Amino acid sequence: MASEMCAIGIDLGGSKIEVALVDRMGVVIKRRRLATDVVGGPEAIAGQIVGGVKELLEDEALSAIGVGVGVAGQIELNTGLVHFAPNLGWHEVQFQSMLSEALGFPSVITNDVRAATWGEWLFGAGKGCDDLICVFVGTGIGGGVVSGGRMISGCGNTAGELGHITVSLHGPDCTCGNQGCMEALAGGWAIARRARSAARGIPATAAVLLEMAGGRPEDISTQMVAEAYRRNDPLACRLLDEAAEALVAGAVTLVNAFNPRRLILGGGVIQGLPELVDRVDQGVRQRALRAATTPLEISISELGNEAGVIGAAALAMRFFSDDVEIG
Amino acid sequence: MASEMCAIGIDLGGSKIEVALVDRMGVVIKRRRLATDVVGGPEAIAGQIVGGVKELLEDEALSAIGVGVGVAGQIELNTGLVHFAPNLGWHEVQFQSMLSEALGFPSVITNDVRAATWGEWLFGAGKGCDDLICVFVGTGIGGGVVSGGRMISGCGNTAGELGHITVSLHGPDCTCGNQGCMEALAGGWAIARRARSAARGIPATAAVLLEMAGGRPEDISTQMVAEAYRRNDPLACRLLDEAAEALVAGAVTLVNAFNPRRLILGGGVIQGLPELVDRVDQGVRQRALRAATTPLEISISELGNEAGVIGAAALAMRFFSDDVEIG
Repeated sequence: MASEMCAIGIDLGGSKIEVALVDRMGVVIKRRRLATDVVGGPEAIAGQIVGGVKELLEDEALSAIGVGVGVAGQIELNTGLVHFAPNLGWHEVQFQSMLSEALGFPSVITNDVRAATWGEWLFGAGKGCDDLICVFVGTGIGGGVVSGGRMISGCGNTAGELGHITVSLHGPDCTCGNQGCMEALAGGWAIARRARSAARGIPATAAVLLEMAGGRPEDISTQMVAEAYRRNDPLACRLLDEAAEALVAGAVTLVNAFNPRRLILGGGVIQGLPELVDRVDQGVRQRALRAATTPLEISISELGNEAGVIGAAALAMRFFSDDVEIG
Repeated sequence: MASEMCAIGIDLGGSKIEVALVDRMGVVIKRRRLATDVVGGPEAIAGQIVGGVKELLEDEALSAIGVGVGVAGQIELNTGLVHFAPNLGWHEVQFQSMLSEALGFPSVITNDVRAATWGEWLFGAGKGCDDLICVFVGTGIGGGVVSGGRMISGCGNTAGELGHITVSLHGPDCTCGNQGCMEALAGGWAIARRARSAARGIPATAAVLLEMAGGRPEDISTQMVAEAYRRNDPLACRLLDEAAEALVAGAVTLVNAFNPRRLILGGGVIQGLPELVDRVDQGVRQRALRAATTPLEISISELGNEAGVIGAAALAMRFFSDDVEIG
């Protein structure tokens, strides 16, 4: 049911590049997946993207208004200068202009989690809402905040580092150098780390997880913890209780500070354990200020794995078109 | 040095009403203080304000463009309906229209802490800045956030409840019903509560504070803790270390989530212990994300006790004038 105007959305990761043709209703018409040529560097990756875009547009009567790209990293607003993208090994890469030139088409670059927030806002669980927060719980935790109908970017375009809000003053070490971040208790890496540490400490308490991991603590994954939780394994239940508690604390902070209408939870951990959404809902209603929870709805992301490409395409539509309806 | 256009700023509290005539440069020209007639209710208070405003304008050649009022409570944006103002005992009072009618002049009502943030933003430590956060640490803790040149209000105008961000999952009980809020560790009431509790528990550790309080634990005040801290009393030092730690954790959360250019600390506790600003600065630079701290400046509020009236007046100028320069 594609309408005429489309955009290309790209999710550029360290292992794969997702390229999608998205229509103005936020529907993915076609997509391609490429293995990222990290070694080849920015020029090679721009070349890969050009190839992918050409392929998508080849036999379509549709035209694309522009290309939006989401990259895990710190990106400068407007110029699309990539200050730092750890998965790609990039520092200070002027990727937006490089890509626009290679494509012969305008492009816009943003942070990958910000792109996913655009997707949920314009076409997913946040549609039509002016005040919303997305929290994506995957290996790490990131998010985006829309307030008063505008995406919050901050003075250096790094706003939305929601995984690194402190929920436990003397809590576990985080990869960011701080302690007690929400991510250090509820991110996928943290859940797995805590399970491995328990298995190394008192193996008997981790019997179920160790069996799944072939007896090797270092092979315990977040997915195994989720699976053991479904079997009512006490260690897995405790770890996920602690993760839920940290998510509640972080959500309370966000709700009290921003007073959103919707709080949207997504990412791999939430998709694997959607019951966490109800637990966060209950916890937030118990603990946050009544005035802030009364108008609040908490829900799961609607776009799932497609939020990134859809959001990047939505951003391109917004940037390169004045008259498109995307709200 | 008053210019022609002025506004009236009002800080309406449970014990006193401050009424000030403020010029367009944010300078208080005259002010009056009245004892709040809480028993008389909204009509009586509107009458008191009318009297105060008349007195201020009586022998001045200046005219006021409108009246801005800051009230501790939950206020509806635009309509100025006061949903709840605990210090005044008000529920669902349509004070803005009542006051405008009584004055014969337009008025605008906002939350008192929001008003103080307007003051710091337009005329104080946040002047000229588009991305800033004010945290006022007094008996309680509240704040305001300006992002991308706009005051964040949230969907129900309750954004900025920064005292109630969770910094310690299983921390001390807060008056809001939650545990481990920044306010429950660093607010004036919490510092005093912890000191009293220590004095009741092991009086020997609180000898200095108990002497100040005439031997009565219940008479220990936040000011006494600050005074004992200056004398290197170990209990006072520990309590203020814990308060500083909570302020750092809360500030890290805010800096990572909002990426402000300036973080402004004010309120009675900060005015009494301005060295807390340096401690927060050092802690935030150690613990928050580098990308967020690089552009960040942390400073003390410039307007002190006048932030409320100046901010309420600034809000009135912004609301009732199109051509005034207040940025």
